[in-house]
Amino acid sequence: MRLELLTIGTELLLGHTVDTNAAELGRALAAAGAEITRRTTVPDRPDAIRAAVAEALDRTGFVIATGGLGPTRDDMTKTVVAELVGKRLVLDEGLLAALEARFKQLGRPMPALNRTQAEVPEGATVLPNPRGTAPGLWVEDARGRVAVLLPGVPREMRGLLVEEVLPRLVARQGTDRRVVLSRTVRTTGIAESALAERVGPIEPEILPLTLAYLPSVDGVDLRVTAWGLELRDAEARLAAVVERLRAAAGEHAYGQDGADVAAVVLDALRTGRHRLGVAESCTGGMVAARVTNIPGASDSFIGGVVAYADVVKTAALKVPIETLEAHGAVSEETVRAMAEGAQRLFSADCTIAVTGIAGPGGGTPDKPVGTVWLAARVHTATHAVKRVFPGDRDEIRRRAAQAALDLLRRLLAES
Amino acid sequence: MRLELLTIGTELLLGHTVDTNAAELGRALAAAGAEITRRTTVPDRPDAIRAAVAEALDRTGFVIATGGLGPTRDDMTKTVVAELVGKRLVLDEGLLAALEARFKQLGRPMPALNRTQAEVPEGATVLPNPRGTAPGLWVEDARGRVAVLLPGVPREMRGLLVEEVLPRLVARQGTDRRVVLSRTVRTTGIAESALAERVGPIEPEILPLTLAYLPSVDGVDLRVTAWGLELRDAEARLAAVVERLRAAAGEHAYGQDGADVAAVVLDALRTGRHRLGVAESCTGGMVAARVTNIPGASDSFIGGVVAYADVVKTAALKVPIETLEAHGAVSEETVRAMAEGAQRLFSADCTIAVTGIAGPGGGTPDKPVGTVWLAARVHTATHAVKRVFPGDRDEIRRRAAQAALDLLRRLLAES
Repeated sequence: MRLELLTIGTELLLGHTVDTNAAELGRALAAAGAEITRRTTVPDRPDAIRAAVAEALDRTGFVIATGGLGPTRDDMTKTVVAELVGKRLVLDEGLLAALEARFKQLGRPMPALNRTQAEVPEGATVLPNPRGTAPGLWVEDARGRVAVLLPGVPREMRGLLVEEVLPRLVARQGTDRRVVLSRTVRTTGIAESALAERVGPIEPEILPLTLAYLPSVDGVDLRVTAWGLELRDAEARLAAVVERLRAAAGEHAYGQDGADVAAVVLDALRTGRHRLGVAESCTGGMVAARVTNIPGASDSFIGGVVAYADVVKTAALKVPIETLEAHGAVSEETVRAMAEGAQRLFSADCTIAVTGIAGPGGGTPDKPVGTVWLAARVHTATHAVKRVFPGDRDEIRRRAAQAALDLLRRLLAES
Repeated sequence: MRLELLTIGTELLLGHTVDTNAAELGRALAAAGAEITRRTTVPDRPDAIRAAVAEALDRTGFVIATGGLGPTRDDMTKTVVAELVGKRLVLDEGLLAALEARFKQLGRPMPALNRTQAEVPEGATVLPNPRGTAPGLWVEDARGRVAVLLPGVPREMRGLLVEEVLPRLVARQGTDRRVVLSRTVRTTGIAESALAERVGPIEPEILPLTLAYLPSVDGVDLRVTAWGLELRDAEARLAAVVERLRAAAGEHAYGQDGADVAAVVLDALRTGRHRLGVAESCTGGMVAARVTNIPGASDSFIGGVVAYADVVKTAALKVPIETLEAHGAVSEETVRAMAEGAQRLFSADCTIAVTGIAGPGGGTPDKPVGTVWLAARVHTATHAVKRVFPGDRDEIRRRAAQAALDLLRRLLAES
């Protein structure tokens, strides 16, 4: 099944809005077995919309269009498409009643403008949109060609896609359906080249599935993709490959797909009935923020100290002044003392400590910008490591927070 | 000047990659006076690329194409376009020498494959790419139609755009150049509807400039856009409108364009020689992380406590147990005690404190999810406010961090 996407909006062309709808539609449609052969973006102008819809229908016979905000503009798209497929607009009584009920619930009269939202191309299927006033429309012309019109608001688009469009696409394909599906194995603490040495030999063996390396500040994701296979076959092959990739990546693999190492750490803490405290300097609260972003963090997380000025390191964390003077704030001795200090301060059995130079200033030949000391402590065992991270201030801080969480993950896995 | 964009990549259509290049090109080209009339994305297939380039040239006579990673795929795009405009590929000796020098510097021999990267369509202008091996190409056909080919790697694309493409586009337009330019006034702590009451009357008076309201978790941005005006005229009108918008938004306006309220607060702290400490519960380190994300934060920021468990509120911040028991952790009394406790702990004259219920659990009829108490303290003056934020856990936390920083900004502006 081949189709084209059309996203409508002058704001998209001007770059005021990044077209996240397009990416989301791409993933969902590929997984549902539809091949997107082209994507087009046009401004909010009837002639541009008409030309783009007509061309897409000529090429593939199926187009999904999003965008045109507010009742006025939605009507424009609808009117253009109705004319193009040779249908007149008729009032849908059910839609009108639903619209009126919606405004009644909000306690205000329905503006006359909204009445046009209840008009649909004759014979079109109305896709109910409980999240907004503009419904989706599934319009078929005399030759069986289909134009699906969806609102541009991401939340509304997503709802209609999942609840109305995907099931119809799946049903259209019957038992012939071929999907494009991906799974991701997340790794961290290993360079892309080193990971390739472990994983590379698997690549020829998993064909026709393909493997991509996706480096980011969180680590290197391994994305494996099955192209054009039957759904169950694709899922079974992906599951097998994911297992092989996890085994090859070893201790560097921390999860799959959208996994967050902070959530993995919290799971391990909960299982071991541990309690966590955090002491941060250069990450300035990012480690604690990552942990507390996970619902239920309060089961294991006690608290944190952002020891930005040295006086906080000595006063709150009891890092000896002599340690700071002899070794500096960015040193193994200091990060170990911070981890111990946090353990006392929070009466926690597990702690994480970070101290480093995020830049842009503050670097020296000995300790250049990017130098970070990390420590994780479980009971009386401490792992401390020095890393020199590349990138700008924000990237160094994000890499340091990820590495600090990962250090505790590894220590908990060993203990 | 009208043109079309073409982004090439199967990964874009599958939604594995969000097309940020397209948005960036949109902004830069509009500001340089080019109107993008259509944007197309096609997979890495010669027939799809050929069709899309040919159609774009037929419609506007000017296309900018990005994408096709690695030497093999770049050659595909180049070969297709050369054929389309009737030019043969010839070896560019200068380009070959530069490529060989690049590999020599890396200390390894140049693979034979890369030699094809030195081939260019006869007569094309080579746009040097110091950030990668694939140069940009400016190809003109016999009828004066132009295809500009850029690599898809965002860093390389951006460099070539700014250094090579935009200056040529500006020069082509001569004195006739008409640009689309925007400026943004950032506001926070005021609802969109209330802001519209203040700003609405200005709208008809600023025509042909237009105004858009852009709500986000940080507040409501007011974006004013000048369409198709001469550059200096556009800049002068925008500057005047920005002044009027700032005046109308009053104390709710905190900056322009990419301004961050954390940076505004740090500027005010530096000016007043203040020192800042932070005490956070539900935001879990996000306020401190926002502050320390700004280079030079150490001039004013001492440190923070993430008082997630109540024991940290009592032990580190000296919030009286009776206060917690009588009023609860999410209360005016507690947030005030946290702000005072942070002042003592950090010997800071300014503090921010936050305590609330981010959800998804923990809400009660009295204090539903989203209830947050915020305090800002300067010397002995404390402002405390209660807010009930909408959204999910992440959104509530981000709104709370922004509101907490803004509370201190307002208090510093008054003092």
